[in-house]
Amino acid sequence: MKRLFLLIGILLPLAVMAQRVTSPNGQVEVAFSLDGSRPQYEMTYKGKTVVKPSHLGLELAKDKHASKGMEETDLMDGFKVAKVENSTFDETWKPVWGETATIRNHYNEMAVTLNQDIREQHRTIIIRFRVYDDGMGLRYEFPQQKDLNYFLIEEERTEFAMTGDHIAWWLPGDYDTQEQETQETRLSGIRERFKSAVNWGNSSVAVFSETGVQTSLQMKTDEGLYINIHEAACADYATMHLELVDAQTKALTNKLMGNSNARTPNPTSSRYPLPAPFTFVSHLTPDATGLKGCMQTPCTTPWRTVIVSDDARDMLSSNLILNLNEPCKIEDTSWIHPTKYCGVWWEMIVGKSAWNYTDDYPSVYIDKVDWKRVKPNGRHAANNEKVKRYIDFAAENGLDQVLVEGWNIGWEDWANLWKRDVFDFVTPYPDFDIKMLNDYAHSKGVKLLMHHETSSSTQNYERHIKDAYKLMNKYGYDAVKTGYVGDIIPRGDHHYSQSMNNHYLYVLKEAAKHHIMVNGHEATRPTGLCRTYPNLVGNESARGTEYEAFGGSRPDHTVILPFTRLQGGPMDFTPGILETQLKTWSDNPNFVHTTLVGQLALYVTMYSPLQMAADLPENYAKFMDAFQFIKDVACDWDDSKYLEAEPADYITVARKAKGTDNWFIGGKCDENGHKSVIKLDFLDKGKKYDCTIYADAKDAHYEHNPKAYVISKKTVKQGDTLKLTEAPGGGFAVSLIAK
Amino acid sequence: MKRLFLLIGILLPLAVMAQRVTSPNGQVEVAFSLDGSRPQYEMTYKGKTVVKPSHLGLELAKDKHASKGMEETDLMDGFKVAKVENSTFDETWKPVWGETATIRNHYNEMAVTLNQDIREQHRTIIIRFRVYDDGMGLRYEFPQQKDLNYFLIEEERTEFAMTGDHIAWWLPGDYDTQEQETQETRLSGIRERFKSAVNWGNSSVAVFSETGVQTSLQMKTDEGLYINIHEAACADYATMHLELVDAQTKALTNKLMGNSNARTPNPTSSRYPLPAPFTFVSHLTPDATGLKGCMQTPCTTPWRTVIVSDDARDMLSSNLILNLNEPCKIEDTSWIHPTKYCGVWWEMIVGKSAWNYTDDYPSVYIDKVDWKRVKPNGRHAANNEKVKRYIDFAAENGLDQVLVEGWNIGWEDWANLWKRDVFDFVTPYPDFDIKMLNDYAHSKGVKLLMHHETSSSTQNYERHIKDAYKLMNKYGYDAVKTGYVGDIIPRGDHHYSQSMNNHYLYVLKEAAKHHIMVNGHEATRPTGLCRTYPNLVGNESARGTEYEAFGGSRPDHTVILPFTRLQGGPMDFTPGILETQLKTWSDNPNFVHTTLVGQLALYVTMYSPLQMAADLPENYAKFMDAFQFIKDVACDWDDSKYLEAEPADYITVARKAKGTDNWFIGGKCDENGHKSVIKLDFLDKGKKYDCTIYADAKDAHYEHNPKAYVISKKTVKQGDTLKLTEAPGGGFAVSLIAK
Repeated sequence: MKRLFLLIGILLPLAVMAQRVTSPNGQVEVAFSLDGSRPQYEMTYKGKTVVKPSHLGLELAKDKHASKGMEETDLMDGFKVAKVENSTFDETWKPVWGETATIRNHYNEMAVTLNQDIREQHRTIIIRFRVYDDGMGLRYEFPQQKDLNYFLIEEERTEFAMTGDHIAWWLPGDYDTQEQETQETRLSGIRERFKSAVNWGNSSVAVFSETGVQTSLQMKTDEGLYINIHEAACADYATMHLELVDAQTKALTNKLMGNSNARTPNPTSSRYPLPAPFTFVSHLTPDATGLKGCMQTPCTTPWRTVIVSDDARDMLSSNLILNLNEPCKIEDTSWIHPTKYCGVWWEMIVGKSAWNYTDDYPSVYIDKVDWKRVKPNGRHAANNEKVKRYIDFAAENGLDQVLVEGWNIGWEDWANLWKRDVFDFVTPYPDFDIKMLNDYAHSKGVKLLMHHETSSSTQNYERHIKDAYKLMNKYGYDAVKTGYVGDIIPRGDHHYSQSMNNHYLYVLKEAAKHHIMVNGHEATRPTGLCRTYPNLVGNESARGTEYEAFGGSRPDHTVILPFTRLQGGPMDFTPGILETQLKTWSDNPNFVHTTLVGQLALYVTMYSPLQMAADLPENYAKFMDAFQFIKDVACDWDDSKYLEAEPADYITVARKAKGTDNWFIGGKCDENGHKSVIKLDFLDKGKKYDCTIYADAKDAHYEHNPKAYVISKKTVKQGDTLKLTEAPGGGFAVSLIAK
Repeated sequence: MKRLFLLIGILLPLAVMAQRVTSPNGQVEVAFSLDGSRPQYEMTYKGKTVVKPSHLGLELAKDKHASKGMEETDLMDGFKVAKVENSTFDETWKPVWGETATIRNHYNEMAVTLNQDIREQHRTIIIRFRVYDDGMGLRYEFPQQKDLNYFLIEEERTEFAMTGDHIAWWLPGDYDTQEQETQETRLSGIRERFKSAVNWGNSSVAVFSETGVQTSLQMKTDEGLYINIHEAACADYATMHLELVDAQTKALTNKLMGNSNARTPNPTSSRYPLPAPFTFVSHLTPDATGLKGCMQTPCTTPWRTVIVSDDARDMLSSNLILNLNEPCKIEDTSWIHPTKYCGVWWEMIVGKSAWNYTDDYPSVYIDKVDWKRVKPNGRHAANNEKVKRYIDFAAENGLDQVLVEGWNIGWEDWANLWKRDVFDFVTPYPDFDIKMLNDYAHSKGVKLLMHHETSSSTQNYERHIKDAYKLMNKYGYDAVKTGYVGDIIPRGDHHYSQSMNNHYLYVLKEAAKHHIMVNGHEATRPTGLCRTYPNLVGNESARGTEYEAFGGSRPDHTVILPFTRLQGGPMDFTPGILETQLKTWSDNPNFVHTTLVGQLALYVTMYSPLQMAADLPENYAKFMDAFQFIKDVACDWDDSKYLEAEPADYITVARKAKGTDNWFIGGKCDENGHKSVIKLDFLDKGKKYDCTIYADAKDAHYEHNPKAYVISKKTVKQGDTLKLTEAPGGGFAVSLIAK
């Protein structure tokens, strides 16, 4: 179904005249022009301005090796348009897993070739725009050429000039963590809110500007336009942040503030004029020396994306990010599968048991400890007996895998100690019989799910990765959860730098060689690379359920994430905490900021091919009728219909389970509750469905009465309507099983 | 033969009273005391002061994780002596290869335990002194303890207070290169000479102070004492430099000057008083953030060594550095052997042929080029035909191995481009048939010697190292020459940092697992680790013969290196350039700054178990009678007698070939020539020897008449005397074959 038309050839000379490209249905338009000799673009949606004229360009860094091909002339100005090529593209592709069985990739493209002749250098770059009915992507391309061969990026300066003081849902821009609560302010309110928005308690924090925010950034205009800025296909390039220019901005920053250990980047501000207030400027994550990228032509940047609609539901159903990624590069994908799992995890997070085996040492060298002789602390969770109980539970309830954290030596002193050789990823603690447990699991049709916490010592992980994956193959693991807690080793690097993004990709490729699926925690926020490498079945890269045990997340958290974090790919959010009050079974005083039913809803509203049933078997035992939904719900889909959506308020979505006629509907809301009226138009005509509704009880409330729920059953058909009331912090979950 | 006596137990309280330890024969004495609460030591030799009272200590860095065990209180003062333990040690051990069959390790030791109680922290360190008849070593030890668990080193401040304005042979302290010409000045002349001493043209340069010098530093006092400062057993710790305090010193530096790409370290100067002029203060190589070390207790620093004698020959025969290293950790060493080799190398260095296969691209992605279809440049040296010729030459002349550089894809754009994925270490160019060539070599009793240039992209090397060594095992290679040209990737790191020193050790250990010997070029200067890991058969780590093709090295270069660079271990100096005038066979206008005979002498004067015959077979063909010495000379020894020595003037040494009664004598001198009178006292009584003398002709001169030599033969016996004249830049070589 691939179609490609080259519409317009070479247009010369183009001078100052703007070049335009519109989306297939005409509602999105992007124009390119030169502001003097600086490239700029603007963007409209249904005739309304989305992005005002905004400059494009990169500042390059000087390098002592310049004479050998390392360039230093900025790619900011001095440009002339050499060529403009327009084309159109329309294909439909099938994801290995996803929200829908097929995805249409339909865009009009404009590629602007620019020449820059400065100081006897003749250089050419291409700025490529792809315009969809729900937004656009643009990227810089650097063909191989004599005068642009290797170069260092001081900073990318892609601007996004907003039309006004929009409402924004934002996280503080940080080189090392994404695990903050989302802030909702006007753009003009970011600076005032900034310091209180930083998660200073995180294991690694590196903020750089009081108006620095992360992508994906969701906004809403007073005219009712929803605008989302993010990036797609960020692989061997630094992750982008956005720095807002506001009335108080004196200069664009390029320095750390706060409590990072990286004593590195030199403050440099741009040599170019400051854009107007309400303009976002790209800000890349630096390496240990403060530079943002080492590039070799031919190469490209990731896509810079703007998704836009006047209907919030379109933001959630958009496939723009996935479409801007390369097609799947893994030939045989038969070993990649959706997974529902439980695990030895929540009880450690809550504080009732421990990852480490002994408390005997203030620090350990893992290869020098006689692990069979040390004194066990009695709190080690990953022991044979407990893991077998979890395997039994998984087998009994149709869960595919059991995650076990803390199975391997090194947890005694693993975090934030600049300890390079922290884990070896192959040696189990004495009470974890890796062969016996895998055999036992397999005998019951269950697999164990591997865990590789790297403690952000990436050098150490890369040294052991081949042996670690061989061990997995040997015992029959086919998925690994990786972790990057703490500051990066080598020292001075950051979680979202070019080199770390390359590391995550290296892990993904090595894993693919061993037919291993990857679920990366604390790794960089996803940008749709799961299209190209579908063994990337999940990421954390945001504030997950674990924070409910650390003090909680606001009830609106999960009705923001699908607009922001989930744009780039699925999240291993680990829902399913039915015993929302932790003090009922532990010393942890915290509670989950949803109702019990709200937890069920997340399996539908937070799309992921990897879904955890995160609570303890003994807690599920108390709510087996509600747990039934977790057992029933699919995690791969032929279709998805977003029925209702408003950022930070509510999301309602219906999904058709892969290869079946069954549908599941989830509704989730914020602290204000929500009333849903759901027309079952999407059901097959003439079919009847057994409908089970898991609803908040009338007096349910996420804080005061979270576990009050009502389960009702009826038969429904196309055209019927469901009226459902979500409690404050609640939701609903519906299963529709075709008769 | 191991003997250990504990002489003195616990002595309390010790207060200000100095604690002393003398060498076994009493001629070296070291005293420890507290200057207030700061530790200090001093050292004498035959009653003369070698090191005046000098402070010891470390400044620690603050870390945000301090509350979790990362300390920040300096280990500089606030100390009380808790315990002093004296002991003696005497053992004789057998090196796997070496200058002598056995080595005696005989020292008296003093371990001073110090307590520091500051801010409710109680901490203990040990300063351990080992005193030999030819010098001393001291190190810091950090036992595991509650209040000193993990810590960051801001700077080590070990002082070496000299007694006067000694003559010094020094290299500019540099975090990234050791390939400078040695400077000979008074200590007071270092600052003035500094900038002209820097090798600004090197591929990686990072100097830090105008009085910063490298170790091993050789000095001579006006009283005729020879003093050498170096270090031993530097493994997972940053390499030490020395910063001289002179009359102009305002503060100790901790910053880069010059043209490094690392835009990193913050200038910090010590918070402690400046020591007196003519004091050296240790200065460690920083990581990318400017810090010097991340430590976990229990741990130690390397040994800081001072070798001293009033006889220059003792400096060369000293085994102090080796003795301060740990015994061999490789159980089966049967696969480690001395090696004489030739190689496809010198013709590329000279510029007549090339490492790379094609000139078609300004840059390459090695995995995207179709190497079989690219256009060969016709200058690629590592081709089947040429390598076979070298194999034939090796087989005909009793050489063990043939090094081949440029055999693998990636040389098109390999250096100083911040290119991470520069080589894969497993894919040969199309004209290098790896299987055929290894089979061919083996059929003739010769092995190929592998080459792994990393381009200093250590992350890339570590990613490929296991596959690369597997390939070597598959085809029958048992040795690898590694290279670290250019700035380190990850960016900001330096060749001699803690992390890089760990990398070199990692390589050594991985190699040992595969029974592979390592010859590391551009790696950190050796500190005797070859005792512990004898598969480290060589290092470059100084200005090698290649510089003769780049403009030349002074004639005294090779009569300095044994006093300095060779203290830590053997150098792959690659001698044997008999065609000293490069223009006779190439377009290179340079010449070797020795006579032809001087090249022969180096096989004896520059000890190494790895010796190259570096010239081209066709050049050796012109001088087959002289080449005979290279064929004959051993490269492993049962005994070595240093007969004459003066730094930068001359060295004469006689060595007894391993497992034989044959001796070889080498004499090398500077640009002034030298007359040697050699008494053959060391020969076996009653034995007769066929003596072949390779001498400079009377009118020989390294510049004007380098290839004038005389070969004479006679029979000699114990007690005979040889009178030999070395030309300017010349030398002599003698073989004594027992009848």
